[in-house]
Amino acid sequence: MAEHAKTETALTDYPRPSVAVDVAVLTVRHDALRVVAVQSPRGLSLPGTFLHPGERLAEAARRALSSKAGLQALDFHQIGMFDAPDRDDRGWVLSMAHGSVVPHESLANSNDIVEVEIEDGSATSPLAFDHAEMVTLSVEDMRRRYAASIDPGRLLGDAFTLLELRKLYEVVYDRELPKDTFRRHVSSALEGTGDTSTAGGGRPAEMYRRKTEISLPESAAVLFRA
Amino acid sequence: MAEHAKTETALTDYPRPSVAVDVAVLTVRHDALRVVAVQSPRGLSLPGTFLHPGERLAEAARRALSSKAGLQALDFHQIGMFDAPDRDDRGWVLSMAHGSVVPHESLANSNDIVEVEIEDGSATSPLAFDHAEMVTLSVEDMRRRYAASIDPGRLLGDAFTLLELRKLYEVVYDRELPKDTFRRHVSSALEGTGDTSTAGGGRPAEMYRRKTEISLPESAAVLFRA
Repeated sequence: MAEHAKTETALTDYPRPSVAVDVAVLTVRHDALRVVAVQSPRGLSLPGTFLHPGERLAEAARRALSSKAGLQALDFHQIGMFDAPDRDDRGWVLSMAHGSVVPHESLANSNDIVEVEIEDGSATSPLAFDHAEMVTLSVEDMRRRYAASIDPGRLLGDAFTLLELRKLYEVVYDRELPKDTFRRHVSSALEGTGDTSTAGGGRPAEMYRRKTEISLPESAAVLFRA
Repeated sequence: MAEHAKTETALTDYPRPSVAVDVAVLTVRHDALRVVAVQSPRGLSLPGTFLHPGERLAEAARRALSSKAGLQALDFHQIGMFDAPDRDDRGWVLSMAHGSVVPHESLANSNDIVEVEIEDGSATSPLAFDHAEMVTLSVEDMRRRYAASIDPGRLLGDAFTLLELRKLYEVVYDRELPKDTFRRHVSSALEGTGDTSTAGGGRPAEMYRRKTEISLPESAAVLFRA
């Protein structure tokens, strides 16, 4: 970082990249994992924007979600910096990919978004730039987080049945999970609400909520390994 | 990302940051976790440099390790982008922090490096810029990786005793680990070499090596939780 510190040359005399942010907002609807895309001159792309002077990357990501997709107050985190020198034909542009997991209701007031379905961990529609790769990494990141605690994106509400939880995890991991093994792995992170649900149509099923400390036993991660 | 695509304005007409890379190289020597620092006009700092046009962040990180610290061929990965607008008083500079864990022998041919001891997860000497925070995040990242597999940085050689392995993990996690619990958690990821060691001075101790699939059972992570 001190490369030029001894010289009189200003930092701005050297070539500098543009820096952008993009956000992969993942959600589940109709038993499918989906990512939020927006229409752009390059076709479908993740909501993104250029970093402004004086701004943090997270502020730029919030601004992109708001201005490009009408989405407010979503949680997200850095996934990785995309830095291939030829990734944008307009010039030298690095982009920090961010990942977010939100319940579908959070998208209710969005404008002009397109929900692209994800299959086998990949977006099923072409996305601009290297955004498809950003989606793939965000799905991998989501799976790591879902192996560590119960539905951290709160795709389910406060109370749910074990069947609802398992069906959600089957969507996230894109495969069937054995019923008894699943129950054994998640039960220590859940507590009964005392209520039952008949939403499934069968006999009343017990309702659960996340314990305050919602970390899953690490043994659960074995179940969710690829 | 398509913010300016409709205009005739070039990307370079907008303010752009300088982008740098810094690398926190962690190692263990004399039962202490240490990070590699170099002398710079700002005092001790992590080896770092500015990203050049046409270069990937990883290439810049390799160049920094080689030119600033004389270190070649180390593995590292992105830890996070440091983006506070005032983090560098020379101007607007973002820096991608990278983390690396290497055996102390890998530092043998380095030039002019300073090994800064780490206590309670933090460097014990002041570092330039926000490099102390980079070190803290790199230590947290190292602990996550060491909870997931046996000594992935290969700080120990190919064969080691359980005592040597536990002593290493006690240095990494900065606390005592109960002998029997430790053995139970790591044993499934190890296999005996058939040899014994008397290096400890006591009765001969069995030697182990990492299994080819070196992932620890996820239950082990419980032991290493903060």
